[in-house]
Amino acid sequence: MPKKRLTPQEYFTEIRAGNRIALAQAITLVESNKLEHQKLAQELIQLCLPHSGQSMRIGITGIPGVGKSTFIEVFGDFLIKQGKKIAVLAIDPSSEQNSGSILGDKTRMNSLSQDKQAFIRPSPNSGNLGGVAKSTRESIILCEAACYDVILIETVGVGQSETTVYQLVDFFLLLMLSGAGDELQGIKRGVMEMADLLVVNKADGNNLSNAEKTEKQLDSALHLFPVKSNNWIPKVTTCSSSEKTGLENIWQIVCDYFMHTKENDSFAQKRIAQNKFWLKTSIQQKLEQQFYNKEGISRKIKEMENRVIKGEISPFYAAEELVTDS
Amino acid sequence: MPKKRLTPQEYFTEIRAGNRIALAQAITLVESNKLEHQKLAQELIQLCLPHSGQSMRIGITGIPGVGKSTFIEVFGDFLIKQGKKIAVLAIDPSSEQNSGSILGDKTRMNSLSQDKQAFIRPSPNSGNLGGVAKSTRESIILCEAACYDVILIETVGVGQSETTVYQLVDFFLLLMLSGAGDELQGIKRGVMEMADLLVVNKADGNNLSNAEKTEKQLDSALHLFPVKSNNWIPKVTTCSSSEKTGLENIWQIVCDYFMHTKENDSFAQKRIAQNKFWLKTSIQQKLEQQFYNKEGISRKIKEMENRVIKGEISPFYAAEELVTDS
Repeated sequence: MPKKRLTPQEYFTEIRAGNRIALAQAITLVESNKLEHQKLAQELIQLCLPHSGQSMRIGITGIPGVGKSTFIEVFGDFLIKQGKKIAVLAIDPSSEQNSGSILGDKTRMNSLSQDKQAFIRPSPNSGNLGGVAKSTRESIILCEAACYDVILIETVGVGQSETTVYQLVDFFLLLMLSGAGDELQGIKRGVMEMADLLVVNKADGNNLSNAEKTEKQLDSALHLFPVKSNNWIPKVTTCSSSEKTGLENIWQIVCDYFMHTKENDSFAQKRIAQNKFWLKTSIQQKLEQQFYNKEGISRKIKEMENRVIKGEISPFYAAEELVTDS
Repeated sequence: MPKKRLTPQEYFTEIRAGNRIALAQAITLVESNKLEHQKLAQELIQLCLPHSGQSMRIGITGIPGVGKSTFIEVFGDFLIKQGKKIAVLAIDPSSEQNSGSILGDKTRMNSLSQDKQAFIRPSPNSGNLGGVAKSTRESIILCEAACYDVILIETVGVGQSETTVYQLVDFFLLLMLSGAGDELQGIKRGVMEMADLLVVNKADGNNLSNAEKTEKQLDSALHLFPVKSNNWIPKVTTCSSSEKTGLENIWQIVCDYFMHTKENDSFAQKRIAQNKFWLKTSIQQKLEQQFYNKEGISRKIKEMENRVIKGEISPFYAAEELVTDS
């Protein structure tokens, strides 16, 4: 594999042929902020789009310490044994602060990362949530063109980024710990409401009965949540990453979900809604990008901001002037 | 008072003279979506701005049934007895669904609404949160130009609208009920974190000891929250709207807060941050308004949306085309 940059068409051919190094390089291209890279990336995405959409897109979240990496490693191994090709992506806009927290250390997925049926991509090191989400969405398309059957998207369960991942995935899995109330686990109610499956991890050894108790409690709690528009009733189960138990059951639930939502068409509806969401979000981002990149706009904004702060003009008036003027 | 529309200068003169009917009409102007009204409203706001900023802006929230209207009525009466002029505004973007839930029925504030030292404005009946927030922000300026000392902004404690009100007020008061865990009260953790004061309402009769127990629990819970950047430690207290107890204490805490934040300059800093927030938000809104109002844009968006849904192009590519093209 040459180190020189390939053309979009060459990347496409290599990706389709299952070349993981080319896929990794293409994702780097997609993540780049350079205008020329973005242009090439768009061409590549266009080539890949007709071959995308076939995977199961699964979001996996939970607070730090819940054991996400280990779970993904053993669940990934399990899926490969079922004959699946799997890709693991990560969203962690705060990864600069918590370096290493999300897939930062590839060796944590030692076995999985050496498997030819797996592709593991650490979280990009920088960028705001919007940027990370955009590149993740495009990375999904590239992975699908590379024929990965299941795409696991890992994120930290603390709020904002889950809402974004929710717009990227078909299925949302929330990893929990036993023995702690959900408040103590730092999980926001909104995150729990998004979950299609709650998995109480570390259900092994001394912890087993606690985990089963938590499972029951969560099951009761879920009944208080409003019914989802797709009529899927969120499930709760337990697993142990160290003993590799509960994985078949999780996979069965995931498969049930896809069957259920494809049957009642909510699967397609959700993807359409997601596309609309990203179109709307992208329009907003592009408008702001265009505006804030204008020659001399920073100075004008600063001037207006000062007048607003002094109470000379209202923010609404200032915005009107800035937008109409430019 | 003539029914015909006044000029901005005439409105300004009447408002400054304490004419409550002119103030009410001016707020209607500010709430109007008509372009000609918006132009007049902006002129009026410009006249009022130099006379604004002097009031205490207080947000009051809590779930339906917590007794917000009654509390505001007795607290307002109390403030008037302290020699204050008070204005009551409401933010309730969902008021069409819950008509009457927020100041919908003026008679619920019978005594207060008849007092010449009070101005009560029901929630606008329509509009999205962004629009309602904008008109409320401008209404605050009008009320301040009319020399109201304390502006109470009522909202329903269920999430989104609090975040917006937080950007409008200096002080945030959360009304609670005793005996119910905060989850049962439907208060999101984020809303509790915003509060500068938690008031357990209905602390009277049989309910008194329960209320005091809840007060203690909330006080402990607050210690788990991160310290605020203004170094204000949120307080918890009880009150009874029916027995009119606890009001002096609440007022004392409010005054302490203003003294504390003015001394360490966080008061001014917060208002500056709010101004910047509204400038940024307004730029975003104006950009979208300008874009979505373009001739033929709906048709173009629809076309692009269909191509995105069919998987022909990515949402990002579609947005680029739409924004660059227009």
